[in-house]
Amino acid sequence: MRLLPRDEKFFELFAELSGYLTEGAKLLRSILEDPRDLGMRVEQVQAIEHKADRTTHAIIAKLNQSFITPFDREDIHRLASSLDDVLDFTNAAAHRLVLYKITQPPPVAAELAGLIVLQSEELAHGVSVLEKNGAVLKHCDEVNRLEDEADHISRRAIALLFDTEKDPIQLIKFKELYEVLEMATDKAEDAANVLEAIVLKSA
Amino acid sequence: MRLLPRDEKFFELFAELSGYLTEGAKLLRSILEDPRDLGMRVEQVQAIEHKADRTTHAIIAKLNQSFITPFDREDIHRLASSLDDVLDFTNAAAHRLVLYKITQPPPVAAELAGLIVLQSEELAHGVSVLEKNGAVLKHCDEVNRLEDEADHISRRAIALLFDTEKDPIQLIKFKELYEVLEMATDKAEDAANVLEAIVLKSA
Amino acid sequence: MRLLPRDEKFFELFAELSGYLTEGAKLLRSILEDPRDLGMRVEQVQAIEHKADRTTHAIIAKLNQSFITPFDREDIHRLASSLDDVLDFTNAAAHRLVLYKITQPPPVAAELAGLIVLQSEELAHGVSVLEKNGAVLKHCDEVNRLEDEADHISRRAIALLFDTEKDPIQLIKFKELYEVLEMATDKAEDAANVLEAIVLKSA
Repeated sequence: MRLLPRDEKFFELFAELSGYLTEGAKLLRSILEDPRDLGMRVEQVQAIEHKADRTTHAIIAKLNQSFITPFDREDIHRLASSLDDVLDFTNAAAHRLVLYKITQPPPVAAELAGLIVLQSEELAHGVSVLEKNGAVLKHCDEVNRLEDEADHISRRAIALLFDTEKDPIQLIKFKELYEVLEMATDKAEDAANVLEAIVLKSA
Repeated sequence: MRLLPRDEKFFELFAELSGYLTEGAKLLRSILEDPRDLGMRVEQVQAIEHKADRTTHAIIAKLNQSFITPFDREDIHRLASSLDDVLDFTNAAAHRLVLYKITQPPPVAAELAGLIVLQSEELAHGVSVLEKNGAVLKHCDEVNRLEDEADHISRRAIALLFDTEKDPIQLIKFKELYEVLEMATDKAEDAANVLEAIVLKSA
Repeated sequence: MRLLPRDEKFFELFAELSGYLTEGAKLLRSILEDPRDLGMRVEQVQAIEHKADRTTHAIIAKLNQSFITPFDREDIHRLASSLDDVLDFTNAAAHRLVLYKITQPPPVAAELAGLIVLQSEELAHGVSVLEKNGAVLKHCDEVNRLEDEADHISRRAIALLFDTEKDPIQLIKFKELYEVLEMATDKAEDAANVLEAIVLKSA
């Protein structure tokens, strides 16, 4: 049984896209751990995001020219979009550092980026076994667990910020950094939910 | 004519899900009216949200394993997701009280939560008559009217905040509380729009 | 080959909807250039938004009662919703001026509104040639290019705000104005992406 169009290129493109997610998230984590050469390295995240955009676009263009059933198409479209969204928010978090001149990001930001790395790796595994309809679900569960962890960490970090940060402009900056990182983990959960739906439908 | 898969369990699950919405919104309203034992009662909202998550998950899992037409599936998926979103924002509003240490929520917050209660009740009615294709549309209209009311109330409350609150950190807290409450009413409108679409398609 | 249901009313309704987008964006730009009679002119934007809501509702009601293929229906639904969203954010930006008592909007706000005008015109052109399957794609590309431009402009404006605005409450107001304007351009990009998908599928 085939979940995706016969054209194997689809799987290659999804592998490529998940690879960019992991690459972008790792670079963001490393920037947050040590923000030297900030501007140059944020440009590198941006370059990865552009490559992912092109891959997403290629998936959707290919999809729109393939003959497959409507509902599967919706799922493939949604999977590509949500994977792309993870990298959009990863990239947005990197840009916040430059725009808001955050030169000493708090350790919790790198911790959240680390969760995006782990989620991206789980998604890449999930996508890689999808063609053979392998053990996709355990990767989806792990992505959801990681999102829950990120949610708790960012909530606690924001509560602490309100307790300790007396400069409202600094508070706005850090609060938004945490929120954007948390949104990346939400989008990873969305992607995992689509993966799960694809598998359940084919069970 | 049947709008949803023959398996009646679907209707039970949707009734269950709408019931959690009402329960969560009522609890939030009561907390906002009198925030004693805040932490414990916010945990109760969280517990309701977890139960709703499980119900939503059960609907989607069941859906993915049923043989029904693609478009209806999309609608059912969207209805479950948007109902679940209402409770997510209800829960998020409750958590803001704890995280931001809001011990004296302004009366307008309880008023907004009251609109979520009314919307949840209308949605529960709409869902309950869907199986028999009853008078769903009047409930949808009422949900939309309530959203419009919430929109006006939260706009006025935020404008007043900018006029009167001189502490920017307090302003950030209350503004976000109003916005999260208003987002819950938006999601209820989304759910009503899906209900309306299901009914119109079957007319 | 027909992309949309035979009923030509659909094209008229989409032309009407895109017309409201352009009208609303032009009015917003003119308000931002010269905010005299602010309250009255914001009410006019609101009135345009209400008309667009009714048109969107008419498209979706008609869609739900037409016999067409499921996937096209999804696209039409999505196109109508995303066009409607552009005007929702245009209207939201106009309202921010009243609610936040912004009497001297910075020139960059009018510049962003100008990009929404250009995008709305491109979308109107794209929609107008859709029936004949004409050169839709170049209009989509231009909408995307304009979104990219708006993204850069709003990022720079927000960075400048953090550098220069020392009053946190003013910063919150202007930051949100820029963000809401930028969100309108995002929604225009969403609409262009749906248009592109419709064309590619029919190629």
